[in-house]
Amino acid sequence: MKEKLEALIQKNKVWAKNGKVADYIPKLAEVNKELLGITVVDDEGIYQAGNWDYQFTLQSISKVFSLMLALSDNGYKEVFAKVGMEPTGDPYNSLLKLEIQEPAKPLNPMINAGAIAVTSLIKGNNSQDRFERILDLTRTISGNPQINYNKEVYRSEWETADRNRALAYFLKDIGIIKSDVEEILDVYFKQCSIELNSKDLAQIGYFLAKQGCVIGPAHKVVCSELTRIVKTFMVTCGMYDGSGEFAIRVGIPAKSGVSGGILALVPNRMGVGVFSPALDPKGNSICGVHLLEDLSKDLDLSIF
Amino acid sequence: MKEKLEALIQKNKVWAKNGKVADYIPKLAEVNKELLGITVVDDEGIYQAGNWDYQFTLQSISKVFSLMLALSDNGYKEVFAKVGMEPTGDPYNSLLKLEIQEPAKPLNPMINAGAIAVTSLIKGNNSQDRFERILDLTRTISGNPQINYNKEVYRSEWETADRNRALAYFLKDIGIIKSDVEEILDVYFKQCSIELNSKDLAQIGYFLAKQGCVIGPAHKVVCSELTRIVKTFMVTCGMYDGSGEFAIRVGIPAKSGVSGGILALVPNRMGVGVFSPALDPKGNSICGVHLLEDLSKDLDLSIF
Amino acid sequence: MKEKLEALIQKNKVWAKNGKVADYIPKLAEVNKELLGITVVDDEGIYQAGNWDYQFTLQSISKVFSLMLALSDNGYKEVFAKVGMEPTGDPYNSLLKLEIQEPAKPLNPMINAGAIAVTSLIKGNNSQDRFERILDLTRTISGNPQINYNKEVYRSEWETADRNRALAYFLKDIGIIKSDVEEILDVYFKQCSIELNSKDLAQIGYFLAKQGCVIGPAHKVVCSELTRIVKTFMVTCGMYDGSGEFAIRVGIPAKSGVSGGILALVPNRMGVGVFSPALDPKGNSICGVHLLEDLSKDLDLSIF
Amino acid sequence: MKEKLEALIQKNKVWAKNGKVADYIPKLAEVNKELLGITVVDDEGIYQAGNWDYQFTLQSISKVFSLMLALSDNGYKEVFAKVGMEPTGDPYNSLLKLEIQEPAKPLNPMINAGAIAVTSLIKGNNSQDRFERILDLTRTISGNPQINYNKEVYRSEWETADRNRALAYFLKDIGIIKSDVEEILDVYFKQCSIELNSKDLAQIGYFLAKQGCVIGPAHKVVCSELTRIVKTFMVTCGMYDGSGEFAIRVGIPAKSGVSGGILALVPNRMGVGVFSPALDPKGNSICGVHLLEDLSKDLDLSIF
Repeated sequence: MKEKLEALIQKNKVWAKNGKVADYIPKLAEVNKELLGITVVDDEGIYQAGNWDYQFTLQSISKVFSLMLALSDNGYKEVFAKVGMEPTGDPYNSLLKLEIQEPAKPLNPMINAGAIAVTSLIKGNNSQDRFERILDLTRTISGNPQINYNKEVYRSEWETADRNRALAYFLKDIGIIKSDVEEILDVYFKQCSIELNSKDLAQIGYFLAKQGCVIGPAHKVVCSELTRIVKTFMVTCGMYDGSGEFAIRVGIPAKSGVSGGILALVPNRMGVGVFSPALDPKGNSICGVHLLEDLSKDLDLSIF
Repeated sequence: MKEKLEALIQKNKVWAKNGKVADYIPKLAEVNKELLGITVVDDEGIYQAGNWDYQFTLQSISKVFSLMLALSDNGYKEVFAKVGMEPTGDPYNSLLKLEIQEPAKPLNPMINAGAIAVTSLIKGNNSQDRFERILDLTRTISGNPQINYNKEVYRSEWETADRNRALAYFLKDIGIIKSDVEEILDVYFKQCSIELNSKDLAQIGYFLAKQGCVIGPAHKVVCSELTRIVKTFMVTCGMYDGSGEFAIRVGIPAKSGVSGGILALVPNRMGVGVFSPALDPKGNSICGVHLLEDLSKDLDLSIF
Repeated sequence: MKEKLEALIQKNKVWAKNGKVADYIPKLAEVNKELLGITVVDDEGIYQAGNWDYQFTLQSISKVFSLMLALSDNGYKEVFAKVGMEPTGDPYNSLLKLEIQEPAKPLNPMINAGAIAVTSLIKGNNSQDRFERILDLTRTISGNPQINYNKEVYRSEWETADRNRALAYFLKDIGIIKSDVEEILDVYFKQCSIELNSKDLAQIGYFLAKQGCVIGPAHKVVCSELTRIVKTFMVTCGMYDGSGEFAIRVGIPAKSGVSGGILALVPNRMGVGVFSPALDPKGNSICGVHLLEDLSKDLDLSIF
Repeated sequence: MKEKLEALIQKNKVWAKNGKVADYIPKLAEVNKELLGITVVDDEGIYQAGNWDYQFTLQSISKVFSLMLALSDNGYKEVFAKVGMEPTGDPYNSLLKLEIQEPAKPLNPMINAGAIAVTSLIKGNNSQDRFERILDLTRTISGNPQINYNKEVYRSEWETADRNRALAYFLKDIGIIKSDVEEILDVYFKQCSIELNSKDLAQIGYFLAKQGCVIGPAHKVVCSELTRIVKTFMVTCGMYDGSGEFAIRVGIPAKSGVSGGILALVPNRMGVGVFSPALDPKGNSICGVHLLEDLSKDLDLSIF
């Protein structure tokens, strides 16, 4: 496996030149776009290749963990009263459907509007408390208690937060969000700034692949159902408005972030973490997607 | 004239039962929806009827004055680089076209997005200074130095500002607004809270009808052109997405606010101020529109 | 006046190089884009300059005449049950608002969807009969019984009719159109193909400026009101989604067509016909708009 | 298994009262909404319950077969140059994204616009020939050579085709469709009118579950990939804009039609055909979806 991964990295790093590093945050913009790393975890062991230990921030990948916590805190019914279950076909930061569809609610928890709504549902005494619960969950399911958030990225998020703030105030206006917008955004920007490497992601993928259950006694959604729900969203909406094509070409649950990370998994079989910061026009890691496509074909991973 | 106005008030106050008082601010919601007052100013004199001296806040009518000041401060070219000149056919608080049209800018200065962009262009050392320039202009063109803003309404605006804040942060995100969003909103909410009565509006209408010129030495748009521009916007976009129907039924430049006020005028001939708080579904004073339609037919006021 | 017109033609023909001739119909595409002609009719006489006698087809200008006939045949209420009175801010061939607004009806009679709905309301025994009534009206109000339609353009319209057919079938689906779609399109394409010159347009403009009345005994909308309604639409929606800017820059009722014609008028004062086939991005004659802007400023024609 | 199916039918037929039979075609409207039938095919045998042998028309389910044929005729690249791979979040008959997204193409082959585009790509000498190839494929993969189309439904489709015709002419206008619109619609309406029962659907589902391959020597997409592609679309877009929720609640590839049929399958394991004509607001069989949800939970069928 390790040789295969090394070979796939050599083959697919050429795609980086067709991609673009996210530049809305200076900290993200300065990364070397040639980086490419992967970790695979399965029942037999852990396999790593390339820049597998490069640290990057979760960004949108954190939407998976906040959804798990919100479901566990509130149950299926309450969460899906505030956010839908449908892919959108619109960009991840779109407001369009909030304005033209009735009833107005974000179409799913993987677009920004939906993720902000989900974060507002996480229980806690204050925003610091809420964030720490997300961080704790990330540490637990990755098995890495060292994971923390990157304060510099977090501060940058604040400075470039205008579109997310527009989304959040819109949600407040239509009654989807009840609590203080600035506090919700504080949690949201912190969760986006959680920093880890491809091995941590692969461990999390393996946890989800195995329906692991650690969320604790208070959870209202039974654990295997909870992991099944997030895996389903990863297939239908995990790769922004490129999810449909990814399902065709790769066919496994995955969630990407604009930092270039991809959390992927094969149900009952393996977890995968990929990192490569050059992005395609939809915002997904261009080398990462190509590498996963090859891996899926080689090992016949598609769930379809 | 006074008898005619009294008669038109009697005839048209019945429409109030079909309308609804704006309820997004408690202070607006508690007003008596049966109120109806009008003032007409022409070369011969001032004519008043009904609750002509009831005090109400400008709300969207203030968009006319902030546009005058922004044009005077920056000139035609700079203002219309940030905001378009086209009616929208969408609700006044819509974000839709900002997302789907290229280049993204508010379609005109009479919708909320456009008015917030316009307010951001008004010159001043700070937000208090900017607001006072709008207040001064309102006092000058109405000839009433007593006019001030209603602090209670202003505070309420802040508390129900989520949609406007969403619009403003969206504008900031796409680069239409450059300065601090909260400061711009502070000016915007204050200008919406300026309080006056139908006589003050009629005086302002008369000023515009006569191409009055008082904005001061610094203005870059010559004065008659400046008043012509705002009058044109009043026709094409002054009555929200009911402007086209108002142009057909009444046919004179007018601008309404959700408090129930309407500023109207007949070029070269008369200024009209109307107040009646019950609104039709588009947000225009229902008695006010009917009364103006009758007045226009009686006196043959349509400019078309 | 004639010298002024000649001078304005010399000054404004340079804009042609910035414009593009409509190319969706071969017959339109082959015209010389340097052409520019104007006719003005007022109480004193007829003034002509440039290519004033060049023959071109009405295209969208015909929407004014079909609206007059539909209003006369059915009355205000029935027509506006099928088509709105609001400018749209969308391109003339847009379907967007038909899908997202409730109740679904074309926003005004000057966009294609609205004009097709209006044409469906014109009375007649068959499509030939309906068209001849439009042609007769055009002949009568222009005072030119020689006017006919261009059969070659008419046939070309059929061949490039896909978008209009999409609009028409959509209108049929939502119940706005009741009769046979192909028959309505036949009338619509014929009315677009009516051929005349700038003098004919200027005569029609003068007729509208003077509230002329010839539609006949059966009309249900009184005549001066009927002309007032069409003039109002010419201001709010006559120049496609450039109507707002035209109102600011020129300020008179006008209706353009993609062949490069503009029908314009000053209420109670003059009729104007312009022809120049190079179009700006919104679909209006680029030389024509600039020429009218100069003329309006020179003679102080703006109604605002 | 048979007892389980009988029990599930008893349990879930109560949902019919919450649903509505499709009424846009008289022939569909007159069906008894209490009907509910199911067939399951797996390696062990065929299991049937309820009104399993009731004949109904494919409607949107036919989109799966036309896609298989178009892929086989043209290859992956050519098909996806004309139609995308993304779920839309919009109703199945929407035109919205065709107007506002660049480049304009239907987002996927499971919405009407996409399916019409796909049908236009099927090879054949004429429309009858093209349709017969779809019919032959349906007969082959169901193993039932008796299957034919219902001429009465076909004729009704023509009479209520306005929205589909609007979509098709729009596609022609933007260059997605090259051939004659009426001929394409003829094939499309015939494929929608193919008539079969739940057993036929279950056989087809079993065929797809087993990556069966019968399309013939000319196909350019290798067979297991072809079946994988259509199964992926069934998950991301198969249940209209209820696909995301269906993936969460049921979690297997499925395609529904407004006649009340659902074609479903579990990869490598079983095929399922369901019929029950009462529909939920998204257009999916209400009893059918509930029954499949129970079946999936009982037998742990979700692929996630």
